[in-house]
Amino acid sequence: MSFEYLIDPAEGPQWKGVLPGRPQPYVLERGEGEHSMLFTDLFTVLLSGDETEGQFGVVVSESPAGDVIPTHSHNRTHETFYVIEGRVRLFFQDTEGQKQSRLLTPGDFGFVPAGFAHAYQIVEDARMMGTLSGGFERFFQHMGAETDHATAQQPPFVPAVPRMQAAAQRHDMQFLPDHRWDDAHGA
Amino acid sequence: MSFEYLIDPAEGPQWKGVLPGRPQPYVLERGEGEHSMLFTDLFTVLLSGDETEGQFGVVVSESPAGDVIPTHSHNRTHETFYVIEGRVRLFFQDTEGQKQSRLLTPGDFGFVPAGFAHAYQIVEDARMMGTLSGGFERFFQHMGAETDHATAQQPPFVPAVPRMQAAAQRHDMQFLPDHRWDDAHGA
Repeated sequence: MSFEYLIDPAEGPQWKGVLPGRPQPYVLERGEGEHSMLFTDLFTVLLSGDETEGQFGVVVSESPAGDVIPTHSHNRTHETFYVIEGRVRLFFQDTEGQKQSRLLTPGDFGFVPAGFAHAYQIVEDARMMGTLSGGFERFFQHMGAETDHATAQQPPFVPAVPRMQAAAQRHDMQFLPDHRWDDAHGA
Repeated sequence: MSFEYLIDPAEGPQWKGVLPGRPQPYVLERGEGEHSMLFTDLFTVLLSGDETEGQFGVVVSESPAGDVIPTHSHNRTHETFYVIEGRVRLFFQDTEGQKQSRLLTPGDFGFVPAGFAHAYQIVEDARMMGTLSGGFERFFQHMGAETDHATAQQPPFVPAVPRMQAAAQRHDMQFLPDHRWDDAHGA
């Protein structure tokens, strides 16, 4: 774990305790939540499985345009992709095993359930919201680095391979480096 | 059930089948989904418990400014309120039983878990996204009226009291008409 993104590493992140950790009402203003950097992207947890009896968590992300993220699948968790701003190309394997790709613009929504290979590419600087099966929302902290700064305008965090492997194992996720999307069909 | 919002009532809603009904990947463009009108608001289901093994559903709403909606609580289901556009005042009872209110603007997020009285008022024409415990996302269809038109710019649907009661009972929800928010504290 790198602490370079924390103002006071001994204290931990300033956002600690911003989520109640149990089912009770609360409000977060834009920019509040549990922040972490993963590569060039800021992920902010707004709600975790701790508040929903393990049902679901909610994450918003802020991402600059870039390359396709590593293709992966997760065996036990479902994930949504809702574009608030920008443009995002979602790649996913369909039920026939065919490779699909769809360009999502603001208001568009994608769903990838447990067990399906997927990836995405930020085509134009984007903000997204995702709902995930409870517990999986903290994957981004486990693979990324906690940060006090609520912006993607900070140095990228590139995890070392053992850190990536540990986070993937913890969340029952497989990276699929041999999976190419060159022949994906889509709009 | 009124069918006045359906182009061909015998066929049912045109959006029938737009959600797969089981865990498989899909994409919806803005304006696609299962639409229903409830009072002056359009609710669109983007994801249901059928696709998430009952974990969660996702709804977007489009609402003109108006009065405070009827105060209620639901005993078994959690609910989020994320403002995409506009301004929404969220009213909720906190863990000490105190009445709170917070004005949410774009990017702000509210969470109300099972068992807490709440309501909201659209202060300025708004679009919101909500994640709900699986199954509860279809409450808006059960109390409202299915429609083929993906806009709130259509006649309001005012449910008869027996329909409201049936939907509330089905989703283990209580309306709390004696609960006033006049003395709510908040920003």
